Amino acid sequence: MDERVREHADILVDWSARVEPGDHVVLSVGPEAHDLAVAVAQKLGERGATLLATYSSGEITRAYLNAHDHDHDNPFAEPTHEQALFAAADVYLSLGGGRNTSAMADVPSGHRQAYRRAVQDVREARFDTRWVSTVHPTRSLAQQANMSFEAYQDFAYNAICRDWAALAEEMGQLKTLLDEGSSVRLVKNEMELTMSIDGRTAINSAASVAYDSHNLPSGEVFTAPEATEGEMLFDIPMTLEGEPVRDVHLVFEDGEVVEYDAAQGAAVIGEILETDEGASRLGELGIGMNRGIDRYTDTILFDEKMAETVHLALGRAYDACLPAGQQGNESAIHVDLLADMSQDSRLEIDGTVIQRDGRFRWESEFEST
Amino acid sequence: MDERVREHADILVDWSARVEPGDHVVLSVGPEAHDLAVAVAQKLGERGATLLATYSSGEITRAYLNAHDHDHDNPFAEPTHEQALFAAADVYLSLGGGRNTSAMADVPSGHRQAYRRAVQDVREARFDTRWVSTVHPTRSLAQQANMSFEAYQDFAYNAICRDWAALAEEMGQLKTLLDEGSSVRLVKNEMELTMSIDGRTAINSAASVAYDSHNLPSGEVFTAPEATEGEMLFDIPMTLEGEPVRDVHLVFEDGEVVEYDAAQGAAVIGEILETDEGASRLGELGIGMNRGIDRYTDTILFDEKMAETVHLALGRAYDACLPAGQQGNESAIHVDLLADMSQDSRLEIDGTVIQRDGRFRWESEFEST
Repeated sequence: MDERVREHADILVDWSARVEPGDHVVLSVGPEAHDLAVAVAQKLGERGATLLATYSSGEITRAYLNAHDHDHDNPFAEPTHEQALFAAADVYLSLGGGRNTSAMADVPSGHRQAYRRAVQDVREARFDTRWVSTVHPTRSLAQQANMSFEAYQDFAYNAICRDWAALAEEMGQLKTLLDEGSSVRLVKNEMELTMSIDGRTAINSAASVAYDSHNLPSGEVFTAPEATEGEMLFDIPMTLEGEPVRDVHLVFEDGEVVEYDAAQGAAVIGEILETDEGASRLGELGIGMNRGIDRYTDTILFDEKMAETVHLALGRAYDACLPAGQQGNESAIHVDLLADMSQDSRLEIDGTVIQRDGRFRWESEFEST
Repeated sequence: MDERVREHADILVDWSARVEPGDHVVLSVGPEAHDLAVAVAQKLGERGATLLATYSSGEITRAYLNAHDHDHDNPFAEPTHEQALFAAADVYLSLGGGRNTSAMADVPSGHRQAYRRAVQDVREARFDTRWVSTVHPTRSLAQQANMSFEAYQDFAYNAICRDWAALAEEMGQLKTLLDEGSSVRLVKNEMELTMSIDGRTAINSAASVAYDSHNLPSGEVFTAPEATEGEMLFDIPMTLEGEPVRDVHLVFEDGEVVEYDAAQGAAVIGEILETDEGASRLGELGIGMNRGIDRYTDTILFDEKMAETVHLALGRAYDACLPAGQQGNESAIHVDLLADMSQDSRLEIDGTVIQRDGRFRWESEFEST
């Protein structure tokens, strides 16, 4: 076995999920994530945790959803057995990795939404565990990234197998600045966007449940902005709802998107914005700080952590960013859009430049005004 | 997809497990059973059942068990989350099929036994569902059977895709004879074995929970004998505890094995007999009646159902064969040994020949005394 698979498993079990003896663990295994599952199972045995492996396959989900003759009078039944499983679990580890990232391309969105409603309680029970999502590098993900398999493996392990404690410390500096600050300004070429973060709490997303962070890799600091004004170009290409999207341009007034266009995929953006009231407001400002991720691969788990980028998400805000008891932007969606900040760009907090052309002020000397 | 995979799924869901709308189904998927799982998922969607897929891999279990530093003071923790899952489930469908039937060959038996104790409650909760075990024909099973993959697929589907209602009716005749009879005599070449079945109930194992039958394929009638006397040669080769075993010869007195030898693997038989008190007594007499199975393949799921064979199991009897409240032979083991009854053989119930040289009396005319 590739030693990097073992290192991935070590980080996932020890750093990310903080597995303890006696923890009841659900391990979700994608069809091509078998090798990582074997390495994780060994770690769980060493830790004295329990283990139930589940199987997560887009092809199985597609077959099930498309066969179900559901309608308003005949909804999907709630899988209460699955809910009982997660209610009794301490840890949920999701090892993504299939054979075809488009396996569910022909599942009508109505079916997905109906099923999503049926598994609402399952999802909540899962989020009540110490959950972590990661992926095993597969040929299918390499193809999505337009990379050879070997190069993709190098890329993925460089993103995953990092000195997370050191990165957590560096990201802590940005978290402190965001927590203490009240406004953020993003400037990129001729465009700028301002937003309020007053009273909001930033998450130091260091790939560990100990940091309220549930992705491996992670490496971003994010918060929940409001009252956004200005315009921004999101120049990192991505696939949304199965459609390629490039150079999305959004104009905000009073916290809301009032104009949009795109070099490609404008119709998809239009549909997203019309989902509900909260879909045209921001739920997240995230700042990528993982220098192991040096290119975009059309997989949001990696892209949004890429150093020298920021992302803004339309839709739902994370409760953890809000003062206790207060609710942020609400929406059924949470769609991240990414901007390259490596050139002719700066990020300011309360008028002080924190990042310029992708470098933070603690990385290089620059004029801070 | 091979149409036989869909037919397999149809039989499993409708005939075997009798899945109804709203049933909560756990679908255990082997690493190479993906295609069958997709077909089953489609059927479950059509039926309006729920679906949670679990992943059953010998490699994962091996990694977990061998890594666990268990001893008497530090046993395996009980997976109570898995127990909660099965307690809330209605149906359990196990789709076997891996890449290597020897995947767990280097797991010490002490580890297996310790883990078996930890999952006792899980196993009981699973047996309280409408459970059915089947296998997807794989290259690994073909290899075990010393067959090409394509020939093995033909073999397996011929065993699985049968007219089960018709076979259930035929097997019902034998069940009636066994239920009404009080003694069985097996004669094979110069050897004979007699046993009492007085008051015992035979199971018409027709591959459906409606018949108390939990294997697909099935096709046997079995009961729980006692007071066995005589000798028998078990001439169908098999692998036990990883060792090849051939031509086991057992001599019984007063229900107990008093002599044993074998052309190969005698030591394994000796170890099995010494497991506990009940290991040297019979727990089962089974009569194979599936004419789709025309050869042995070293997989007990198929071999014991083969037409023109009988099998006798050392160890545990099934409660369903005993009068209500009464317990049959007790043991930690249940090891089937198989005898070819196609030549120079007969099976008698209370002195009447029921089967001669593999043919039942309703199949061909013969002297019945």
